[in-house]
Amino acid sequence: MARINENFRKLQAGYLFPEIGRRVRAFTEANPDADVIRLGIGDVTLPLAPAIVAALHGAADEMGTPAGFHGYGPENGYGFLLDAIREHDYASRGVAIAAEEIFVSDGSKQDSGNIQEIFGTDCRIAVTDPVYPVYIDTNVMAGRTGNADEKGRYAGVTYLPATEENGFTPGPPDAPVDLAYLCSPNNPTGAVADRENLEAWVAWARANDAVLIFDAAYDAFIQDPTLPRSIYEIEGARHCAIEMRSFSKRAGFTGVRCAYTVVPREVSGTTSGGERVALRDLWSRRHATKFNSVPYVIQRAAAAVFTPEGRKQTGEQVAYYMANAAALRAGLGEAGFACHGGEHAPYVWVGTPDGLSSWDCFDRLLEGAHVVCTPGSGFGASGEGYFRISAFNSREKVEEAIERIGRTFGA
Amino acid sequence: MARINENFRKLQAGYLFPEIGRRVRAFTEANPDADVIRLGIGDVTLPLAPAIVAALHGAADEMGTPAGFHGYGPENGYGFLLDAIREHDYASRGVAIAAEEIFVSDGSKQDSGNIQEIFGTDCRIAVTDPVYPVYIDTNVMAGRTGNADEKGRYAGVTYLPATEENGFTPGPPDAPVDLAYLCSPNNPTGAVADRENLEAWVAWARANDAVLIFDAAYDAFIQDPTLPRSIYEIEGARHCAIEMRSFSKRAGFTGVRCAYTVVPREVSGTTSGGERVALRDLWSRRHATKFNSVPYVIQRAAAAVFTPEGRKQTGEQVAYYMANAAALRAGLGEAGFACHGGEHAPYVWVGTPDGLSSWDCFDRLLEGAHVVCTPGSGFGASGEGYFRISAFNSREKVEEAIERIGRTFGA
Repeated sequence: MARINENFRKLQAGYLFPEIGRRVRAFTEANPDADVIRLGIGDVTLPLAPAIVAALHGAADEMGTPAGFHGYGPENGYGFLLDAIREHDYASRGVAIAAEEIFVSDGSKQDSGNIQEIFGTDCRIAVTDPVYPVYIDTNVMAGRTGNADEKGRYAGVTYLPATEENGFTPGPPDAPVDLAYLCSPNNPTGAVADRENLEAWVAWARANDAVLIFDAAYDAFIQDPTLPRSIYEIEGARHCAIEMRSFSKRAGFTGVRCAYTVVPREVSGTTSGGERVALRDLWSRRHATKFNSVPYVIQRAAAAVFTPEGRKQTGEQVAYYMANAAALRAGLGEAGFACHGGEHAPYVWVGTPDGLSSWDCFDRLLEGAHVVCTPGSGFGASGEGYFRISAFNSREKVEEAIERIGRTFGA
Repeated sequence: MARINENFRKLQAGYLFPEIGRRVRAFTEANPDADVIRLGIGDVTLPLAPAIVAALHGAADEMGTPAGFHGYGPENGYGFLLDAIREHDYASRGVAIAAEEIFVSDGSKQDSGNIQEIFGTDCRIAVTDPVYPVYIDTNVMAGRTGNADEKGRYAGVTYLPATEENGFTPGPPDAPVDLAYLCSPNNPTGAVADRENLEAWVAWARANDAVLIFDAAYDAFIQDPTLPRSIYEIEGARHCAIEMRSFSKRAGFTGVRCAYTVVPREVSGTTSGGERVALRDLWSRRHATKFNSVPYVIQRAAAAVFTPEGRKQTGEQVAYYMANAAALRAGLGEAGFACHGGEHAPYVWVGTPDGLSSWDCFDRLLEGAHVVCTPGSGFGASGEGYFRISAFNSREKVEEAIERIGRTFGA
């Protein structure tokens, strides 16, 4: 008798984005003429930059020739991509990362979901609240939690509320924790951790022999060059932190799929016998056993992001989205909404008006303004009373959305 | 203190193919002039078919335009690919599969490694021996086994020896088992299960409320149209079987990455309370939480495999490899080797001569003939005394390899 993994039964109904999809489909089926503006799921909208399209063409041609064909690739990624990552994402910021410490993958969703596999099921985890649901759901599936309470909080997990009071960047927990997930610039709040905050986290991790999972999928949106873009800009982080980066948002790769994870040689976990084991070696084994690398053509496309043309073109895309974020902050602020984030991130975190719940506000935005946002409570109990609005759309749609929202919620 | 997943420590040293890679690198570094012929890892060698390259170009162009850009795709795969799979891989064989039962992924390695996540850790598994290492290693990592013995067999796993006596297609176990992994055409033995064998497996699974994981990654190499290509050609299989297919070998996608898994609505597992749960819904949840679909350009490339040109061109590639397999069987047979498989699969399973162990034979083939094979014992204890040789290379290399092997092992 095949017994199922009953931990799946603890998961809350429907992963957030499919649930949004269902509600939007229901609305558009009932209102086929409505011009719905989607600022919900956080998907990019600008087409791939010309340098990236050219790289795809070049690689496709290679793959059609005996000399240029590439079968199974190196497990961790091709050298040309690893070298570009090392140079542009790290050396340029004064950080030295070895090629063997980088693991190219098909997404930060996958990496941040899979990383928990190398840890024991008795590891105690902490997440900020609100939080990207993948961190928590994958730990639920692995049996590291109890059941959820009526607010959706799982027993055994330490939640760190991100609030206006702490600038939406909570510090380390007092409770005993072995593994903490951080995301900066943050999804969903759009807040960015400053050096002081990250130093506190690294100091805590080292003092408590804990591991930080640092998701920097949105680092390209940081506007202030003095803010850290990598956790490894913080002294000591190589001993306690795993970092994830993605091409999804910085280069429009949500439908192209490329990301990477850095596991420095120094970061380790322990066995029950007290032996230290390099997490890099465990992740390498996991990667080799359960993954087969990213398509050659996609790795070529990712490498093109780092060429002079690629950097210029994707930089312009980021600037375009950040101008949208500024317009959202300004426009919704004028309409009386309390806006947070959106200065170093493509998300604005907005307080719901009139004491509306997040989902009620979602429905009102959809039905009244025909605008799709993401309900804050979908990201955790502390997200209740907020919604996330994304800068990923055309300037025209963003301006239209601002106007409609103002009209819907106007006096 | 972050405790590691200690199940990883049970894994045998090095995943098989990286270990082969290390030995080959050591040899070529010591012998830089040696012309090494690689018939080991089972990687395809022919360039992508023109229809597939054209599809990549077309999709790359689309992605560079506002109207043709595709961000996050549908979780299970695009409709155009699901429909092509349903029509060409199933309806053409009289099998009806619904779109919602198909989950497009980036590889059968991933799917066959991840599928165990939806089952309880107390599920008892069976594998044939020899076996594709991913099935077993991923269950070791998940804690479903004890330690390995000196032959590499893990405590708590039921091994079903594939031997000359049973035509390398063992039947169902007598021992109590909840989950059985089958692969036909088989990697590594090249044997193919006939209808009678598969009927016995389905009958066993239904009688024991067990689930079959049927890996059909090599189905395109079946030459006899009366042999089943899908487990669903067997009556009752929709109630007990999950099937995996891949584009890797049939269309040269080892560096392109596309595959899919079918989970029929009817196949279920049970909770500890005896409740039945559709495995399709669990896999769907797993897929939505930990995966983000296959790149749009790759799904377009996969769909091109099913066009008239794609079918013709990839069919010619399969025929080319199968002619290599026939040459290997004939040539090695003449040289006195006992050859199995290779008639409906791109692998020939060869008995080592002179009572050599698999790895000793691997080293002798590498050092004497400069030919890379895969040692049978790397696939399990019952693989000892065999090596796997792959038909994935050019005709010239295959013929050269046959001649060199004959010379090295000649009287």
